[in-house]
Amino acid sequence: MSLPRVAIVGPGLLGGSIALAVRARGLGSVAIWARRADATAAALRDGFADVASTDLREVVSEADVVVFCTPIGAMPALAREIAPLVKPGALITDVGSAKGGLVAELAPIFRGRGRFVGSHPMAGSEQTGMRAARADLFEGAVCIVTPEAASQPEAVAAIGGFWASLGCQLRHLGPVEHDEVVALISHLPHLLAATLVNTVAASHSAALDFSGPGFRDTTRVAAGAPDMWAGILTANRDAVRKSVDAMIESLREIANILARDAGDPALLEFLKLAKHRRDTLRQPT
Amino acid sequence: MSLPRVAIVGPGLLGGSIALAVRARGLGSVAIWARRADATAAALRDGFADVASTDLREVVSEADVVVFCTPIGAMPALAREIAPLVKPGALITDVGSAKGGLVAELAPIFRGRGRFVGSHPMAGSEQTGMRAARADLFEGAVCIVTPEAASQPEAVAAIGGFWASLGCQLRHLGPVEHDEVVALISHLPHLLAATLVNTVAASHSAALDFSGPGFRDTTRVAAGAPDMWAGILTANRDAVRKSVDAMIESLREIANILARDAGDPALLEFLKLAKHRRDTLRQPT
Repeated sequence: MSLPRVAIVGPGLLGGSIALAVRARGLGSVAIWARRADATAAALRDGFADVASTDLREVVSEADVVVFCTPIGAMPALAREIAPLVKPGALITDVGSAKGGLVAELAPIFRGRGRFVGSHPMAGSEQTGMRAARADLFEGAVCIVTPEAASQPEAVAAIGGFWASLGCQLRHLGPVEHDEVVALISHLPHLLAATLVNTVAASHSAALDFSGPGFRDTTRVAAGAPDMWAGILTANRDAVRKSVDAMIESLREIANILARDAGDPALLEFLKLAKHRRDTLRQPT
Repeated sequence: MSLPRVAIVGPGLLGGSIALAVRARGLGSVAIWARRADATAAALRDGFADVASTDLREVVSEADVVVFCTPIGAMPALAREIAPLVKPGALITDVGSAKGGLVAELAPIFRGRGRFVGSHPMAGSEQTGMRAARADLFEGAVCIVTPEAASQPEAVAAIGGFWASLGCQLRHLGPVEHDEVVALISHLPHLLAATLVNTVAASHSAALDFSGPGFRDTTRVAAGAPDMWAGILTANRDAVRKSVDAMIESLREIANILARDAGDPALLEFLKLAKHRRDTLRQPT
């Protein structure tokens, strides 16, 4: 059996890192589609791909695995172009970080043409673009595979196997539950970090000048690409708003505890519980 | 001139690190007071001090600089014991992280006996205790010196010089403004990190299992010692509550932006502003 061909639609940080990981691990050949010819030229020149083209047909028609790595908003239109071009048994997935609406839109496009199952590899950094790509980006990262009720179990297993072969730890969640979970552990923290920076700056003109390592860590994710994050937060806005409401409710409770007697044990219990939970987080591998 | 004697009252992470830094940099001799004899024995055995005793007189009577490093709640009673024992010109300071109430309580105790000026070296870690102490803990850390209107300029300069000699970057704020600033850049972030962990755990039973590096960084400070942080947050509770209120107000605004049209540019502008401010934070040195 010849090695599979992996097609990457949109070579940013994630697409570029998938390409590097597939080639570094000898998992198959890589074809990259980009909208601009300078990007495909760079992909070839810098060793990301065996094939790179601005023509979707050249990139996907021989592919065994097709991975959408563009911003979420661009995926449905590309999917409609790609669906008639793929091999019948091709596996199709995406790296979108909001899945409910996206999977509901992409899955029907590929019904009867390839086998689509959504994915969300939780890897990234403040950097963006193909030049920030790394072959080891996915090592130890969690990848959430998001099957629907209609997904073929073999396709779900195959997509999971693809991410596992890049070094990911697999999890499975339905698309809607996925959105609730990532709102809580990724989108809410991002919004909190950005809001913290802006609140501190608005409350005292010089306060940021006093920041130390704790503030730097707490706000690190706020250095992420604003356009990418605006897209992510907007795509998942229902779940994000729900998580923000829950956070506001918790902050009100803790403010009320602080307003009570200084000896109130509830504050200490709250901090102990948070420390215990933080200490038992999954360790990075 | 002989080298100064530095007396440390309470050898935890900060007191122990001051001791190590003073000795490593050859700045003077170190005397440590601890409540328990096993702590003074450990301080001598492990090279933290030239003198260590449970007797305050032995530790402070020859000191040129006295640094209170106990929890804030223990400082006033110790100060009343120490004030009659210190040399007239001795510099007195503390490392308390809330200054308004503390400075108002400590300064009168030392009026006419030694020269008191409050300090807040912004260094630390999730670890506590003398065994976590490091000679380089203060290198590049911001130390806020908090003079009152009544402080002697020479004493303010001398206390600043002491921290600068340990490697600190100096800032000056009045005690009340200090509390507002540290509520914003230290206490609020801590409360947010703890509240985020607890909110996520309460909202979805398995969500924490999906956490990645971003969540780990955003919540790192929540691993800090709960009893220490309950004391800090309680000591500065008026300013902390004000900062929590400002944060809730900002979160409401951003939730409202998310509720509007997906194309609303306000979200992108908000994230861009946060990124710009985060990118221009003081770099650690």
